[in-house]
Amino acid sequence: MACSTPWRSRFGASLGPVGKMNEADFIAALRALPLHEGARNLQDDAAILEIGGETLVITHDAMIEGVHYLPDQDMADVAWKLVATNLSDLAAKGAQPLAVLLGYALGEGDERFLTGLDAVLGRCGIGLLGGDTVSGDGPRTLGLTAIGRASHSPVPARSGAQIGDALYVTGTLGAAMLGFEALRDGNLADHSAYSRPLARVDEGQALAPQVTAMMDVSDGLLLDTFRMAEASKVSIAVNTKACPVADPARAMECLSWGDDYELLFTLPAGVPCPVKAQRIGKVEPQGFAPLFVDGEAVTHAQGLGYTHR
Amino acid sequence: MACSTPWRSRFGASLGPVGKMNEADFIAALRALPLHEGARNLQDDAAILEIGGETLVITHDAMIEGVHYLPDQDMADVAWKLVATNLSDLAAKGAQPLAVLLGYALGEGDERFLTGLDAVLGRCGIGLLGGDTVSGDGPRTLGLTAIGRASHSPVPARSGAQIGDALYVTGTLGAAMLGFEALRDGNLADHSAYSRPLARVDEGQALAPQVTAMMDVSDGLLLDTFRMAEASKVSIAVNTKACPVADPARAMECLSWGDDYELLFTLPAGVPCPVKAQRIGKVEPQGFAPLFVDGEAVTHAQGLGYTHR
Repeated sequence: MACSTPWRSRFGASLGPVGKMNEADFIAALRALPLHEGARNLQDDAAILEIGGETLVITHDAMIEGVHYLPDQDMADVAWKLVATNLSDLAAKGAQPLAVLLGYALGEGDERFLTGLDAVLGRCGIGLLGGDTVSGDGPRTLGLTAIGRASHSPVPARSGAQIGDALYVTGTLGAAMLGFEALRDGNLADHSAYSRPLARVDEGQALAPQVTAMMDVSDGLLLDTFRMAEASKVSIAVNTKACPVADPARAMECLSWGDDYELLFTLPAGVPCPVKAQRIGKVEPQGFAPLFVDGEAVTHAQGLGYTHR
Repeated sequence: MACSTPWRSRFGASLGPVGKMNEADFIAALRALPLHEGARNLQDDAAILEIGGETLVITHDAMIEGVHYLPDQDMADVAWKLVATNLSDLAAKGAQPLAVLLGYALGEGDERFLTGLDAVLGRCGIGLLGGDTVSGDGPRTLGLTAIGRASHSPVPARSGAQIGDALYVTGTLGAAMLGFEALRDGNLADHSAYSRPLARVDEGQALAPQVTAMMDVSDGLLLDTFRMAEASKVSIAVNTKACPVADPARAMECLSWGDDYELLFTLPAGVPCPVKAQRIGKVEPQGFAPLFVDGEAVTHAQGLGYTHR
């Protein structure tokens, strides 16, 4: 299961074995290779590189046409999202983004891609550092490496949640889902929460010195909370009524859909939260299930996150 | 023409327009976007990131199945080459490799890929820092980001060749071509020069304090010399009889084929070469052609490099 392998596999929970190995086996095998000490055993959102007294935070994500974005999607939005999702990984580590490297496959919509890339780089105040351009047949794969400077050491991990901590989340969950539906149905509702998300960079830096654990919510609140609990070897109880959702009538959908790129974090009891966020649960001793949703035990990650494919 | 755009486009010289934009237009448009100061205007093998008194050298390359490697190629060799080619970019900047991030598409031969990745990481003494695993249909795209620490500042650029400098190259050109043919024909000759190249990491570091310009030879000696001349705003005269080739009967092919991953560099006249290398030419004032091959002017890059596709 991808739930125990938070190496960047945003859609892994819903994909079965492909080819000769499935993702879980592949990542497990990667862990047997020579790993850099900053790899955090491939169990966090981003990697750490200590250099010259500074700490860099580095992440790489890939998007495949037809899997992570629709073939007819506006490539300007695809560019935006490719950058924003990587910056969200940096935000979850409290890092200040410095630059990105792009791995780009030429094809339809290149001009729109450039327009979106220009917009997101400008909006986020970062520059393109380099990359590679390739040409091939079939669905395109786009890759991005984002590099940031840690604002606080140690860099927050998803594995640090402590018994007694309170669980918080920023923003409103399910906004991306409603945006996706607006885009899919071609209605006039605002779809920017889905198509042009913004990483919580400022909040991540404000939180980094305070949190015991932090990650971004990319695959749905419930699945990501499950992963935080597993990584931290605790159980986490979520009170869904406390969760800020974009559509209260579809609360569980809002909590299972991904793409919101909010920050999920734990603070010791009594520590005031330094950013605008909602307290939605608490950390408990490791029980028979990693996750309790309104008191109900969730023992498997299967089905917790939305199938994006 | 890709010749004037040495943003990593190893096979760009031979590919025509694809989709809505061709590569040259795309890269020219990228230069109008917010660039990081270390991007070197997307005109070098790798990017530079100054941090905490240190200088990092960072590169990203992608390989597409059926374009940069054959669908039936041993995935262990593909993994090796994916790492080695990126390390060659670091070597050309005199950098000591620190770590790599992998963007991997699951598929056939995953176990062999892991075997090759293990071997090359071990051989080069570096660790896997992180990355992303994806699943999709169609030809796979593999991406790698390599990060190194500069051993000398300023970091050598391909644009620094000075009039009067001598031009040198390491190793033997065309060895990869013969290896490719051995592999293609299934004969018993050693194909490791093609399938398992090694980056000139030690030589790059020894050279960095001395060279005026340096780059790796990935697309063929003649094409890459042409690019160095253009970037440096000089002309370069190459004496092919001085060039070390794997098959003297096919010298021009050896000098046009890529994939050798040797180092091409210029030294001021009279400066002794600190590594084993061959002096093959000299730098002259910018004439009507960037490149002179045995006295013959080459005004266009077209046809200088081998078509790998």
